[in-house]
Amino acid sequence: MTAHYFEHPLNEKTRIYLRVEYLLRQLKVSAQFRDELQHLLFFRSLFDLLEIFDQIQLKSELAKDIEKQRLTYRSWLNVDGVDQEMLQHVLQDIDTIHGTLMQSERFGLSLKEDRFLSAIRQRFNLPGGACGFDLPALHHWLHLSEDVKTRDTNKWVEKLKPLSDALEMWLRLARETGMFKSHIATNGFYQSDAEEANILRLSIPGHYGVYPMISGHKNRFAIKFIDFASGQASSADVEFELAVCS
Amino acid sequence: MTAHYFEHPLNEKTRIYLRVEYLLRQLKVSAQFRDELQHLLFFRSLFDLLEIFDQIQLKSELAKDIEKQRLTYRSWLNVDGVDQEMLQHVLQDIDTIHGTLMQSERFGLSLKEDRFLSAIRQRFNLPGGACGFDLPALHHWLHLSEDVKTRDTNKWVEKLKPLSDALEMWLRLARETGMFKSHIATNGFYQSDAEEANILRLSIPGHYGVYPMISGHKNRFAIKFIDFASGQASSADVEFELAVCS
Repeated sequence: MTAHYFEHPLNEKTRIYLRVEYLLRQLKVSAQFRDELQHLLFFRSLFDLLEIFDQIQLKSELAKDIEKQRLTYRSWLNVDGVDQEMLQHVLQDIDTIHGTLMQSERFGLSLKEDRFLSAIRQRFNLPGGACGFDLPALHHWLHLSEDVKTRDTNKWVEKLKPLSDALEMWLRLARETGMFKSHIATNGFYQSDAEEANILRLSIPGHYGVYPMISGHKNRFAIKFIDFASGQASSADVEFELAVCS
Repeated sequence: MTAHYFEHPLNEKTRIYLRVEYLLRQLKVSAQFRDELQHLLFFRSLFDLLEIFDQIQLKSELAKDIEKQRLTYRSWLNVDGVDQEMLQHVLQDIDTIHGTLMQSERFGLSLKEDRFLSAIRQRFNLPGGACGFDLPALHHWLHLSEDVKTRDTNKWVEKLKPLSDALEMWLRLARETGMFKSHIATNGFYQSDAEEANILRLSIPGHYGVYPMISGHKNRFAIKFIDFASGQASSADVEFELAVCS
């Protein structure tokens, strides 16, 4: 049986980052409109993203975090044993992506001003609210040629590219800071200290039939394994892999 | 260019029926989990249905409406010129479906009591809330074998069969009461009287580039055609097909 892979954010900001990454992935996959339903996911993930942009200043948060990563990587310049060529590549990537991010509009600004998107956004979250009679403009748009729809969706997705590139890089570099190590959760419970950690990554053998409930913050966390079949805390000794990423 | 097909409900109850039909179709298509995203639509449409069941007594409304259809069809028994054999078939179908409907549980009752579904329902509507860390139980379930997932989804969808069968029949018989006729909306506007109508069905040639905004009730309605490109009321004479269904 394969291993189940889980990720858990240890602070609110990383929680948002992971949600946004997840929504951007949905957006890109569903933008292909491969079946009669994918447009629902496309617009849903787009509107979920706009709602998140309304709630937090994602652009400035992300710019600050990338700046922090830049300082960390710079501190390794001319340090013995560090691959300087690779380091230069990373620093160049960071510079380019940070520059594009700083020049970009506030995330979602032009999408919020798009007449068609604004017209359908409000009703979209009603239960069954994407019906033809609730959203005749959307229904009309769905009847248009593939070319027109592809042009429109590409235009909308393109607006989020500075966000997508910056987030993708930040998360990739963050994930690379952690190494998977084997641990045992005695009686289904494991806790540990951490140091300014952002993300926990877990790999759990499927045969245990458990999933993790994680609580904690950047300096300390606890993992309780839940038995899926019973919905109760597991009392098994669970051997799993864990990477703590900062 | 092909014609664009629209439907519009003329009362609140039919509005709910059409939304539920739309959600049930989403549920059945997405239950095949053909790609990594369809599970999102599956659970979303399931939870949207549960929300609608919380709001209205759908079962008793539908039973009353089917009873009305039964009386209409009975009044045609032994009427000259009516195909009596076909009529008997329809009346038999109505009896069977009405009987099953009356014996069924309150719609969604056992789904609402399902531990797994209840656990994931609350967070599902947060923007990006279907992330692995928000819903680890769902994430675990998605890792299970196709057999297990198919067994579960079939079990859930099966619970809605009495609703699905009854609604499908009521809407089919309702739609059959209307015949498409050609009309012209002068300066993009058309209005008419109706008699206890439930649903308007429209077929609009695509080349006009318009979609309908419909207002009204069972005895009178107005259709205003909107130009998709400008978002403004169209001033064109639009020739379209309309069926008024009761």
